[in-house]
Amino acid sequence: MTIRIGIMGYGNLARGVESAIAQNPDTKLAAVFTRRFPSQVKIKTPGVSVYSVNDVLKFKDQIDVMIICAGSATDLPEMTPVYSRDFNCIDSFDTHANIPQHFEAVNEVCLANHTTSLISAGWDPGMFSIQRLYANAILPEGKDYTFWGKGVSQGHSDAIRRIPGVKNGKQYTIPIDSALEAVRSGKGPDLTTRQKHKRVCYVVPEEDADLAAIENEIKTMPNYFADYDTTVNFITEEIFERDHSGMSHGGFVFRTGVTGFDKDNRHIIEYSLKLDSNPEFTGSVLVAYARAIYRLHEAGDCGCKTVFDIAPKLLSPVSDYDLRAHLL
Amino acid sequence: MTIRIGIMGYGNLARGVESAIAQNPDTKLAAVFTRRFPSQVKIKTPGVSVYSVNDVLKFKDQIDVMIICAGSATDLPEMTPVYSRDFNCIDSFDTHANIPQHFEAVNEVCLANHTTSLISAGWDPGMFSIQRLYANAILPEGKDYTFWGKGVSQGHSDAIRRIPGVKNGKQYTIPIDSALEAVRSGKGPDLTTRQKHKRVCYVVPEEDADLAAIENEIKTMPNYFADYDTTVNFITEEIFERDHSGMSHGGFVFRTGVTGFDKDNRHIIEYSLKLDSNPEFTGSVLVAYARAIYRLHEAGDCGCKTVFDIAPKLLSPVSDYDLRAHLL
Repeated sequence: MTIRIGIMGYGNLARGVESAIAQNPDTKLAAVFTRRFPSQVKIKTPGVSVYSVNDVLKFKDQIDVMIICAGSATDLPEMTPVYSRDFNCIDSFDTHANIPQHFEAVNEVCLANHTTSLISAGWDPGMFSIQRLYANAILPEGKDYTFWGKGVSQGHSDAIRRIPGVKNGKQYTIPIDSALEAVRSGKGPDLTTRQKHKRVCYVVPEEDADLAAIENEIKTMPNYFADYDTTVNFITEEIFERDHSGMSHGGFVFRTGVTGFDKDNRHIIEYSLKLDSNPEFTGSVLVAYARAIYRLHEAGDCGCKTVFDIAPKLLSPVSDYDLRAHLL
Repeated sequence: MTIRIGIMGYGNLARGVESAIAQNPDTKLAAVFTRRFPSQVKIKTPGVSVYSVNDVLKFKDQIDVMIICAGSATDLPEMTPVYSRDFNCIDSFDTHANIPQHFEAVNEVCLANHTTSLISAGWDPGMFSIQRLYANAILPEGKDYTFWGKGVSQGHSDAIRRIPGVKNGKQYTIPIDSALEAVRSGKGPDLTTRQKHKRVCYVVPEEDADLAAIENEIKTMPNYFADYDTTVNFITEEIFERDHSGMSHGGFVFRTGVTGFDKDNRHIIEYSLKLDSNPEFTGSVLVAYARAIYRLHEAGDCGCKTVFDIAPKLLSPVSDYDLRAHLL
């Protein structure tokens, strides 16, 4: 049985999902949906068509899992609940502070319509969250550290580009080396968000834009920038294209903790990602979770899920027996 | 509801389990069982008693999960199936090649007796296995690397101590730095076992022992040392006690892979553990899985499980809502 996947939206993440589907023989791309004119969207998968979002309900019986590739700020909070009426959906909602309310909205729709959706897949939230959970369960007395970067944050770049007067923009999150080393030492330093990362923005302004206003709006934006040391660089379109078109990213999750009756034994758990392409890696995670959601739905398990609810084996195309024999 | 845990056996791993129970307020130690004379076994938890294994069935209704702390070579293949008749059991069976047959033996007993057991928990097999599974599901085209150490290998230390003329001995497995760096570079090198690890032995010889013969016997021992670059150091009993009584260990799991239609984007996933106490960390993993097994059993899910079957949230004492709000 091949899992038929639909892609809603066709930006960088969608292209990452599309190429991940091509790497997983038990999945296939069924259709791509766009809010643009379908004829203007060129996809890479031979034999697959692009349709208007207005036609999506016609595909209800031809799609097992819909992967929604859209922004967390305004699109996903609307789209995932709406499409969960008719499809099992996966999104990469990454506004951490709003996850509980997004979960409730999607869960309500799923339970009413017997669908199975998963929110906030990717690497953070996603693989990093899983590492935090496992490490906290194993070392209940300890400290968590998450570092992001060096890399472009799509969410933060999108947030910059929505500011009036901004023509183009990109944001790099960069871990501060001395902070990383302090954590690896196992000494359990107290580090504020600000001490762990800096945020560096490259902005191409519209002609005659108010640069001071743009800089201020970026630096004071809640959730995204207000808690960080943020640098804003205004550059030309040419320099932007030449130097800032890569999509690499990465990061580190640590938990350090103590065990023993005397609490004198120290342990350091470190997980890190170095990614040439953030959207392709994220897309690969979404496709693995599409496999899991398909299986849960087939088993009659409806409602909204997160990566915490998904047994690892559900992500793998390999049989339970072979997983035990070869990966355990 | 407090989860009542029994410990079968009382060696280093059992002591690690005992201290982990003390760190997890939703668990408590119910009893310790031993094949020795119970009066000769001194445990650290106040108010808890040690009993003979012969009395274990009297505790059938007083223990939610039994953690079996015994060796993989001969004990666990017998004990876990036997005790799974009457208890939900957890073991740390680590003979990778024999996992499928151990699983079948335990699963059969669990299904016949409506119990829920989990085999092969710990860090390898265990947390390392989980990392391998997630990373393989996300990056289907890539290479896996596992490095162990720096840490003591019990099996290799035992092998040294069986050699005539050896009074005491310990063997450290040590990852070779240049191999680690080659993997981290993302180039996907092919590395033989010999190229990834070296083995360093510390041996206390008997008086008048033939040191050259001992060294030769170690270095040419098939399976254990012959395939590795092995160093043998002869030391005194005093130095052995002073410098080589620790139980630290650790290791690294990597997967490197490519994504994209052109397969030109490279990704590196790295997970590492640095553990002051191998048995205390392993014990902490076993207690987290005891929580999961208790919950699965309460939900009526019987049979033999592995870490691949367990949704991450089942390991945590935190509510689903709080996990989503704070760790996702």
